[in-house]
Amino acid sequence: MSGRTEDQWVDWMARVAGPGLGDDAAVLEVTASHQVVASDMLVEGRHFTVPPFRPTDVGAKAVLRTLSDMAAMGARPQWVLLSLALPGSWSGQAFRALFRGAVRAAEDHGARLVGGDTSDTSGPLVVDVSAGGVPGGPAAVTRSGARPGDVLVVTGALGGQGMNGWRSPRARIEEGVSLAAKYGARAMIDLSDGLAADLPRMCTASGVGAMIENLPIAPAARRAAAADGRTPLAHALEDGEDYELLAALPPDAWERALENPLLDLVRIGNVTRDPALNLLQDGARMPFPHGGHVRRF
Amino acid sequence: MSGRTEDQWVDWMARVAGPGLGDDAAVLEVTASHQVVASDMLVEGRHFTVPPFRPTDVGAKAVLRTLSDMAAMGARPQWVLLSLALPGSWSGQAFRALFRGAVRAAEDHGARLVGGDTSDTSGPLVVDVSAGGVPGGPAAVTRSGARPGDVLVVTGALGGQGMNGWRSPRARIEEGVSLAAKYGARAMIDLSDGLAADLPRMCTASGVGAMIENLPIAPAARRAAAADGRTPLAHALEDGEDYELLAALPPDAWERALENPLLDLVRIGNVTRDPALNLLQDGARMPFPHGGHVRRF
Repeated sequence: MSGRTEDQWVDWMARVAGPGLGDDAAVLEVTASHQVVASDMLVEGRHFTVPPFRPTDVGAKAVLRTLSDMAAMGARPQWVLLSLALPGSWSGQAFRALFRGAVRAAEDHGARLVGGDTSDTSGPLVVDVSAGGVPGGPAAVTRSGARPGDVLVVTGALGGQGMNGWRSPRARIEEGVSLAAKYGARAMIDLSDGLAADLPRMCTASGVGAMIENLPIAPAARRAAAADGRTPLAHALEDGEDYELLAALPPDAWERALENPLLDLVRIGNVTRDPALNLLQDGARMPFPHGGHVRRF
Repeated sequence: MSGRTEDQWVDWMARVAGPGLGDDAAVLEVTASHQVVASDMLVEGRHFTVPPFRPTDVGAKAVLRTLSDMAAMGARPQWVLLSLALPGSWSGQAFRALFRGAVRAAEDHGARLVGGDTSDTSGPLVVDVSAGGVPGGPAAVTRSGARPGDVLVVTGALGGQGMNGWRSPRARIEEGVSLAAKYGARAMIDLSDGLAADLPRMCTASGVGAMIENLPIAPAARRAAAADGRTPLAHALEDGEDYELLAALPPDAWERALENPLLDLVRIGNVTRDPALNLLQDGARMPFPHGGHVRRF
């Protein structure tokens, strides 16, 4: 990528994303007593490849991952910062498509891209997105509040996404806000690394266990299973990239949430006092396959 | 780097940085009506090399760069997010040193590291730091408010820093807040890319020009000049990595600021209505060397 100076690119980005991008920092009005902030980094070759991803998908996915973290806190995102380390092989056109994908993904979730940074790199493309927002309910929801007897729900079917299965999903912002504000969710986490990695995280943080009885398996998980010989259940548990939310709800709230036509929740099991994780399949207990996309580094 | 899982590293980071790191996002109390946010990305081989940088310096520098952006807005930083793409060649010990350097740099500037992300990468180390804070005065200071007749000041001597001259400087937080809140600075920018790049940015954003008459040249710039044959003035103008602030002050505020023993300001010239940039050296006008660390990418 060449030709324009950094300053000329900043001018271009400010035209696409709106005012405020040209300063050392962005100034934002604050609308609540608490703020929720998160960041998520994507590395080419590790989290995606181009192709099958298009540059616009990379920008959208980078924003989506961080906004999914906001959703998991029951927060409504307001602003996004986008930092890019760009390989020399990326054309100006590809950069513009990535940037527009990020701007559009932020807007699609009610947020605005307000700043960031760019650099060149001798390595793969790296995209880091930070975001901030406000709790949709009286407080943000963490991973650590699940209690024995709580009902475990997910916001959609699982599995079959991943590096080659990108379908430009939405972060579950409205679902997260609703679960937090209307149904008193005690703990939430997004399933970006897969239930097999993310359920243990919630249970460990909460000091509880879980009995999983019923997993909604996405059609894409069945297609992936047909292609690679693993079971659809294994894909639903371990694929990651779902961006659905896992929440622990008090039982009475679950009853109420069932009647909400805007929420399409699936009950997958219960929180248990026993800290073990159990999976019930066809009436038989199976050991829970700890793992999913647990990164070692 | 190997051995520990991501979750084990998150546990370790939470012990070093304090509570809140284990969730999808961090929750912060908001203390002002406006918030200032910024991010800055460092790439190994582009912004630093190890050695001569030590891993702890990399963490400190990454935080410093973003906090310097906060200083340039007259803002006091409160929180920091740290995202890392780590090459396999980085040991666990080097990672821990980098992380501790970042935590300490945040604390040294009154901020707290509250979250972030980690990934592995096949390329060079990439560190992205986002930060947020509150304006120290009634409003944040941008680049665009300089007016003809304003006095241009810098917070310290320039030149001779850069990739091999790291001396772990501090971001000019107190100076920025003081210039904004007590002396009504009309425009500010930090000199991370050097005066030759950053003065034109302020002047373009403000629709003004400048006459530069007096540049404070750092001893390190003179040493660098002796080593490479460029002039000390060229180093002071073009080196970047200074992390001093450039501010445009109303003339009466400059008179008052001179009497403040806590501010060590140097007047370098004036803002002019003529949009040209001029450099007066030994009584003769020279063309201003537009440039500095202007990146093309």
